[in-house]
Amino acid sequence: MSPDATRTVLSEPGFADIEAASKRLSGVVLRTPLLESHYLNERTGGRVLIKPESLQHTGSFKYRGASNRMARLSADERAAGVIAFSSGNHAQAVALAARRLSVHATIVMPRDAPQMKLDNTRAFGADVVLYERRQVNREEVAVELQGRIGGTIIRPFDDPDIIAGQGTVGLEIAQDVAARKLQPDAMLVPCGGGGLIAGSALAVRESFPETAVFSVEPTDYDDTRQSLERGERVGVPGEAPSICDALLLTIPGELTFTMNRRLLAGGLSVSEADVRGAMRFAFDYLKLVVEPGGAVALAALLCGAFDAKGKIVVIVLSGGNVDRELFAQILRD
Amino acid sequence: MSPDATRTVLSEPGFADIEAASKRLSGVVLRTPLLESHYLNERTGGRVLIKPESLQHTGSFKYRGASNRMARLSADERAAGVIAFSSGNHAQAVALAARRLSVHATIVMPRDAPQMKLDNTRAFGADVVLYERRQVNREEVAVELQGRIGGTIIRPFDDPDIIAGQGTVGLEIAQDVAARKLQPDAMLVPCGGGGLIAGSALAVRESFPETAVFSVEPTDYDDTRQSLERGERVGVPGEAPSICDALLLTIPGELTFTMNRRLLAGGLSVSEADVRGAMRFAFDYLKLVVEPGGAVALAALLCGAFDAKGKIVVIVLSGGNVDRELFAQILRD
Repeated sequence: MSPDATRTVLSEPGFADIEAASKRLSGVVLRTPLLESHYLNERTGGRVLIKPESLQHTGSFKYRGASNRMARLSADERAAGVIAFSSGNHAQAVALAARRLSVHATIVMPRDAPQMKLDNTRAFGADVVLYERRQVNREEVAVELQGRIGGTIIRPFDDPDIIAGQGTVGLEIAQDVAARKLQPDAMLVPCGGGGLIAGSALAVRESFPETAVFSVEPTDYDDTRQSLERGERVGVPGEAPSICDALLLTIPGELTFTMNRRLLAGGLSVSEADVRGAMRFAFDYLKLVVEPGGAVALAALLCGAFDAKGKIVVIVLSGGNVDRELFAQILRD
Repeated sequence: MSPDATRTVLSEPGFADIEAASKRLSGVVLRTPLLESHYLNERTGGRVLIKPESLQHTGSFKYRGASNRMARLSADERAAGVIAFSSGNHAQAVALAARRLSVHATIVMPRDAPQMKLDNTRAFGADVVLYERRQVNREEVAVELQGRIGGTIIRPFDDPDIIAGQGTVGLEIAQDVAARKLQPDAMLVPCGGGGLIAGSALAVRESFPETAVFSVEPTDYDDTRQSLERGERVGVPGEAPSICDALLLTIPGELTFTMNRRLLAGGLSVSEADVRGAMRFAFDYLKLVVEPGGAVALAALLCGAFDAKGKIVVIVLSGGNVDRELFAQILRD
């Protein structure tokens, strides 16, 4: 690959790319609502606007980026199929987007991914290749696979079309907040590789440049928080167990961090207990099924990592794919 | 009470009353979205549009009717307070609407109501009076209470302002379906006293007179289905246990049945097992917490009581107030 090609792949998307993605995805993705809860407003003392991407097709925001990226494949690329590596939400998203476009998909997933994510990915017709999360690098597995079977790798976050697709979450938020004649003081977004928050921060700050955007991560996977503090990409060991399977990345993406360093106000982190409590709160009061990684922004509000008192705060619930058994356990904690 | 006064109370609301309610409730109730699921469409072979009133404030559609009715109280009536009898969802709705208007509320609830519904009603500041579901008539308890403490009884369904308020569910459905340039073949709505379905059928059939509207009830509480078949109000024994606490009414309302006899195409019923299966489906694929009574329309689609193949079908998920322990049990069934 020439240096020029590398630069092309890693060029940042602009706001116009998010607007273009939004047009491209109209009728394909679900326009999720912006909800509000008396209970949450009372509990936090602020006004909280909730973007439930758990209600998106495939149960997470990932369907936006995958659909946007794959809509831009050429006819030849479509014929050759796609490859993705994912802990589960990107997997399902690529699988459904591929089926919609009649493209063959091969997905590399960790053997310990939630059963529901494995089942759904297969149900959408994708071939699933399993790997051991702690033994091999999933990106290497995907590249090796590509060498054997060909096809285009659909990256989970470090790709401008993926970031622009995820940014439509922020675009919808900005539109719905503006329609209510509100000005958000802050926005809290779950952060794994950083694609959702990079795109959404870009879109929201286009309309609301004063909005402070914060990443939220599990305590032991707070690489974006640490990287924002130091001003450069920092890795974490990633050895600690966590129920937040969607957020177990150990270093920020290159492209996403370049954007996030500029766009974000800072990073927050929450404990496993905070996440479980947030999932119970979402059950009791929001009537939403939220997966652990999808609940971290809500957890940050509820545990006090972010003080919403007197503020207008947007939170993103990024996904809802959680196995029945774990959910039942958490309800009974 | 004079015969004239009775007739006034029992006059049917018209479509204009639902439009007026919609204006009155703007900014008070949540405009819930109309969702769609690849999984549900595939499973049924139709196109299913989902109206999740579980996401409404207080966790059910009841907040619409209660807010509409109470917005019409005079200053004197507000000062004297309100009384309501309810298995739980109307209770929470009246309690929150009362607090918003600074009106005192006393709510008569069955001792075996879900704990969450009791807790939330009290948390909104209402006085809760408990009664034994199988021993006394809750309406008599409320009337006796009114004799002692005064105030206005906010009926759960047999009231034109309540029906018009619940009808805003149908009005939003009609607007959102029209925006998608679709024509619904059918609409399935959970049915207890019949207020939600009466108002919603009126609103939807104003725009879509060809839409066939069906009530859905638990098998042992299918009084509306039986009444529709016979053309007159028929009661059921109401002795069988059921998890559908919101739908355990044993005879249709007078006013609601007058409307439903004219507006509905028929009645469906579903088993307890169908309801549990629907709640699991909503968890797995819709990422929504739906209470038993709120899941009956979804259950009717999934169990085949209604064949959606090749049809455009709207279903209402009417509430999401379910205790953690029961939900965990159902997930583990």
